[in-house]
Amino acid sequence: MVTIGIVLAVASMGMAPQPQSRPVRPEVAPDRTVTFRLAAPNARKVEVNLEGTGNLSLVKGDDGVWTATTKALAPDLYGYTYSVDGVAILDPNNPRIKPNLIWVGNLILVPGNPPEVWETRDVPRGEVHQRFYRSAIIGDRRDYFVYTPPGYRQGKTKLPVLYLLHGFSDTANGWTAVGNAHVILDNLIADGKAKPMVVVMPLGYGVPDFATPGGRNFGDRSLVMENYTKFRDALLQEVRVQVEADYRVSAKREDRAIAGLSMGGAESLFVGLGNLDTFGYVGAFSSGGLAANRPEEAFPHLDVKKANTLKVFWMACGTEDSLIGFQRGFASWLKEKGVKVETKETPGGHEWRLWRRNLAEFAAKLFR
Amino acid sequence: MVTIGIVLAVASMGMAPQPQSRPVRPEVAPDRTVTFRLAAPNARKVEVNLEGTGNLSLVKGDDGVWTATTKALAPDLYGYTYSVDGVAILDPNNPRIKPNLIWVGNLILVPGNPPEVWETRDVPRGEVHQRFYRSAIIGDRRDYFVYTPPGYRQGKTKLPVLYLLHGFSDTANGWTAVGNAHVILDNLIADGKAKPMVVVMPLGYGVPDFATPGGRNFGDRSLVMENYTKFRDALLQEVRVQVEADYRVSAKREDRAIAGLSMGGAESLFVGLGNLDTFGYVGAFSSGGLAANRPEEAFPHLDVKKANTLKVFWMACGTEDSLIGFQRGFASWLKEKGVKVETKETPGGHEWRLWRRNLAEFAAKLFR
Repeated sequence: MVTIGIVLAVASMGMAPQPQSRPVRPEVAPDRTVTFRLAAPNARKVEVNLEGTGNLSLVKGDDGVWTATTKALAPDLYGYTYSVDGVAILDPNNPRIKPNLIWVGNLILVPGNPPEVWETRDVPRGEVHQRFYRSAIIGDRRDYFVYTPPGYRQGKTKLPVLYLLHGFSDTANGWTAVGNAHVILDNLIADGKAKPMVVVMPLGYGVPDFATPGGRNFGDRSLVMENYTKFRDALLQEVRVQVEADYRVSAKREDRAIAGLSMGGAESLFVGLGNLDTFGYVGAFSSGGLAANRPEEAFPHLDVKKANTLKVFWMACGTEDSLIGFQRGFASWLKEKGVKVETKETPGGHEWRLWRRNLAEFAAKLFR
Repeated sequence: MVTIGIVLAVASMGMAPQPQSRPVRPEVAPDRTVTFRLAAPNARKVEVNLEGTGNLSLVKGDDGVWTATTKALAPDLYGYTYSVDGVAILDPNNPRIKPNLIWVGNLILVPGNPPEVWETRDVPRGEVHQRFYRSAIIGDRRDYFVYTPPGYRQGKTKLPVLYLLHGFSDTANGWTAVGNAHVILDNLIADGKAKPMVVVMPLGYGVPDFATPGGRNFGDRSLVMENYTKFRDALLQEVRVQVEADYRVSAKREDRAIAGLSMGGAESLFVGLGNLDTFGYVGAFSSGGLAANRPEEAFPHLDVKKANTLKVFWMACGTEDSLIGFQRGFASWLKEKGVKVETKETPGGHEWRLWRRNLAEFAAKLFR
């Protein structure tokens, strides 16, 4: 047995011991107020931008620590960033980071009682696989993520698949690292609210540098077209083929769904409504684009009869989202055409808080 | 086909177009100098702390952008953080983040020609699986990562396993997100320099809050002991058991290796030398602790004969690392005892730049 010496040894290991005082970081109180704290002794102005709340000014204390306390917040997983003298910064003492190609931030959980659907619970857990490949269609090296539900390794039957698409500026792990999609699915499945399913989360860009800071993107119309069509082709001809070869999944239309948020919502409409033999379910969360002022041009050959064989066609958007007009306009046009679509409007803006709830609601409808 | 309208639609999607000017972010020139750039118009002092170089002062331009250019750097993957008026901040325009429970930073690649072993190449790629479970031994919910090599899904034979341990303050994905362990293995395997192997990367804490900012850690000797012993027990009785049930891996001693960096190096010595029937290979990179001034107390019951049946026992440390003394002292003590150990000293400090090279060198020695 190795015993006593390790103690003496490690204590003098050369690693700086941490200060024993309370760390300067945000704290969630039992009354669900959050106190933000940032050490910035030389700063002149410190603010925190909190998802759903906006900017709060912090006040400097004698110790150089700036603080601000929110009102009581609803249980949720909130994004936030600090601004110090006009420079957007991450919280140096919060390891939970919201990965993003352009707008990085932090996340803080205000827990619910009982826990909300995006909160980790002691239920059987699935796995999240990161896979890598070179896309011949797009011409870059890229990754995608695959969620397998609890019991996947032991099971025998082929599972249905949800293709779940992130928004503009997200990385391929947006739906897991920020959206907690894997946690949501674990909880829904444990509670019998969703069927066990595989969830495939591809990188959503059909153009390699579409979402780099300062890059060309929505300002360039031909690039936008290339982005959407190459994304579709890579999804159907590369990612789907790999997933159906490597995972125990069904290849039937009624076992395939596609949904996404924002740009990924537009992609879901584009790919889903354009490939009605491939997908049996389409969901669009806070999406714009395709449902714009000229839907006749967006969907000139929409097969109304086939669209009505979709088992679920669902759109959701926040009422304070600037894209709500697109959803309403597109839904009206679809109804005029005779296409059945279910729409939902909820309070809120263009935010992950809505998309987690959208996923929970949409996933529960699938593969019934 | 869905064609024209999407263009009009997405262009007015409500997403802010990015500025067309050059983004304010670090740039690597062909001569391998790096120019750091940070917009901070109101700041009085901006520095960048660059791995292996230390602090560089940035100079403010008329546009409020601070810049500094390094000398030509050796090809490597460098960590860096900015300091603005004394506050450590991340680069707001670099999505490549070095996850960490205490010291978050950014990463920037200075590419080699030909590419270095940690650089992504067009070779067959493995997968990285994130797995979740509740540890009965440690009493928390935790995750671990499993690398499977290219061809794993198609193969039939049982593969050997390397248990690869991160350092103090790292998250469970430290070895992949910062260490590029999966890339290193892909490249070594493609070049015939390493055997195909599964790599298991557990969360390295035996005490749940061991590495929180301001938490108790190395300053508390009984806690340190608990941290090491519970980590060992969770590794052997939980993680190992799950991996051997769920993956096509060998359960023979000669097919199991353990190695780690810093705290994980100490854990590799503790677990490896303490369980010589379980592991056939032990590696310790920049480790301290166990090899301290009183090795007789650290390893009172070391089985010299059995230790000499290890197929590889390898320690490496940087000559500028404050822990170099531990490696030298422990190696001397082992030699006096008659235990064969191979040691390596390389230029450098307590840095990932060394640990990626250590992994490449150690992995190539395994399972021969």
